[in-house]
Amino acid sequence: MVDSVVFNGSELLLLDQRLLPHKTKIVKCKDEHETATAIKDMVVRGAPAIGITAAYGMALAENPEKAAQVLKAARPTAVDLANAVEYMLNEIRKGADAKKAAVEWHEKIRESTRKISEYGAALLKDGSTVLLHCNAGPLATGAYGTSLGAVLEAGKTKQLMVYVDETRPRFQGALTASELRAAGISHKVIVDSAAGLLLKQGSIDAVMVGADRIVRNGDFANKIGTYPLAVVAKENNVPFYVLAPFSTFDFSIENGDQIKIEQRSEDEVLKIGKQAIYQKGTSAYNPAFDVTPAKYVTAYVSEYGVARGISELQGQFRRG
Amino acid sequence: MVDSVVFNGSELLLLDQRLLPHKTKIVKCKDEHETATAIKDMVVRGAPAIGITAAYGMALAENPEKAAQVLKAARPTAVDLANAVEYMLNEIRKGADAKKAAVEWHEKIRESTRKISEYGAALLKDGSTVLLHCNAGPLATGAYGTSLGAVLEAGKTKQLMVYVDETRPRFQGALTASELRAAGISHKVIVDSAAGLLLKQGSIDAVMVGADRIVRNGDFANKIGTYPLAVVAKENNVPFYVLAPFSTFDFSIENGDQIKIEQRSEDEVLKIGKQAIYQKGTSAYNPAFDVTPAKYVTAYVSEYGVARGISELQGQFRRG
Repeated sequence: MVDSVVFNGSELLLLDQRLLPHKTKIVKCKDEHETATAIKDMVVRGAPAIGITAAYGMALAENPEKAAQVLKAARPTAVDLANAVEYMLNEIRKGADAKKAAVEWHEKIRESTRKISEYGAALLKDGSTVLLHCNAGPLATGAYGTSLGAVLEAGKTKQLMVYVDETRPRFQGALTASELRAAGISHKVIVDSAAGLLLKQGSIDAVMVGADRIVRNGDFANKIGTYPLAVVAKENNVPFYVLAPFSTFDFSIENGDQIKIEQRSEDEVLKIGKQAIYQKGTSAYNPAFDVTPAKYVTAYVSEYGVARGISELQGQFRRG
Repeated sequence: MVDSVVFNGSELLLLDQRLLPHKTKIVKCKDEHETATAIKDMVVRGAPAIGITAAYGMALAENPEKAAQVLKAARPTAVDLANAVEYMLNEIRKGADAKKAAVEWHEKIRESTRKISEYGAALLKDGSTVLLHCNAGPLATGAYGTSLGAVLEAGKTKQLMVYVDETRPRFQGALTASELRAAGISHKVIVDSAAGLLLKQGSIDAVMVGADRIVRNGDFANKIGTYPLAVVAKENNVPFYVLAPFSTFDFSIENGDQIKIEQRSEDEVLKIGKQAIYQKGTSAYNPAFDVTPAKYVTAYVSEYGVARGISELQGQFRRG
């Protein structure tokens, strides 16, 4: 497994995910400002990995209270970021060693995603075909992964076929393809809008996605395109699984309408690298996430197990 | 209006749509072979424009019976191609002047799409926001257009906002954006998977698409991504309109399951221009079309008017 987030005791070393799978480059962060910039610019991405990065950013800060503001402002939708920062603030206020606390957060996520991968893998039968949207494996979680983690775990003992959504505008499908390739799991890339045809023609046994924020009623935010995928999966009776660790849950928010959706640069849509696809002056609308209502979710998979519905999930959390 | 297909009496002049909106280049075809290649390579695209092109290709052929085979094999899904070739074969067998017959086919499509644009425009209220997928305007029809034709017509007298699906893998959204821009109609480009969010948040008043083949029960093939768009539109009670001329109808086929879906090159997905998005050896699945069942269609718009359901449409056709 490649470590996308590494802390060497004095610096944070991030694998620059913008250049993968073509180039391997490490970005070093010495303080909370460099860390926040790396999160904002998507050197590091994936909700759990952003959270881990922010925890280390807090450990590198001189003034934790100010650093918390800087880091939380980097990206608004993935709650892992805020949850990690709040955890660190609490630990620091209690007098804990900040670096040790950050390592502990990372370990907690690692252990949670290890369990999620196992619980998720058990949902996939030998011979299954899985559809993945965006990238939620080791790179995105700084650990085992969530949706892709489950596929990688299942792929150790079962024959799988994976369709990989390219995930416009940033093509995170290329990261997923490279991680599946490294694991020797069969896969094909599709444009996002081809998922409908596959679901309709019965080619898909399960859709698995990660999440950026799951709220109290079970609605969740995830990469743009997750919502239409969930609607079409349900229309065709294909199981739709959401896999996420404790750090992605936000029970302070009642429902999905209250989740803030990050708007990103128009150029992510209008250009590919430096190549302009549109005439100069063309505008784009570029929401990075959408919100999927709980009614489309077959089951949530967390470190506490598989929950068929939000009340079962909340029960697992209370007991956990 | 730009003419994408022009016949000068001895040669067919096609506007190379692969280079638009950045470069204007004309591809000349002297015979049916060059014409078939231009269709296959998508110099010309859009079901009605392909049909017109094929009609002229027949007019340029020495042996019409052989030419019919060559031209029909160029692309399998858009029935306009086969319908135009069959029309030409019949006219030629009856002893008609082939060039005159081809010009008449073009005129018929022009008149049909003019009416479709007017009937479609009447469905859009002042202040409406419309979602378009792929490109079905003047370029794609060699005439007025279908879905985009309706928007261009409505835009002459009404204030509109148009969201333009980029339409991966070939970014036909760039053609739509350029045609809207030329007409001075407000628009923004989105990645295909962002349409779900817009439909869910109530931002869209109508979805309008063209078609490549509409069969007897009302199921229809259109650009990949049309089916999930139709499902999500229905889920959110947003009207979903299919606009197409007589040449796109194929009542010889019972239902959508029998429509042959063209598979195109993996490189359309894996590369942007010459830029590889994926590691070498990565595979893609690239169906060019999907099939949308009739139950998701609010109304069909043809030159005979607006039909709310396939039986109304068939009645209009019988009377027409």
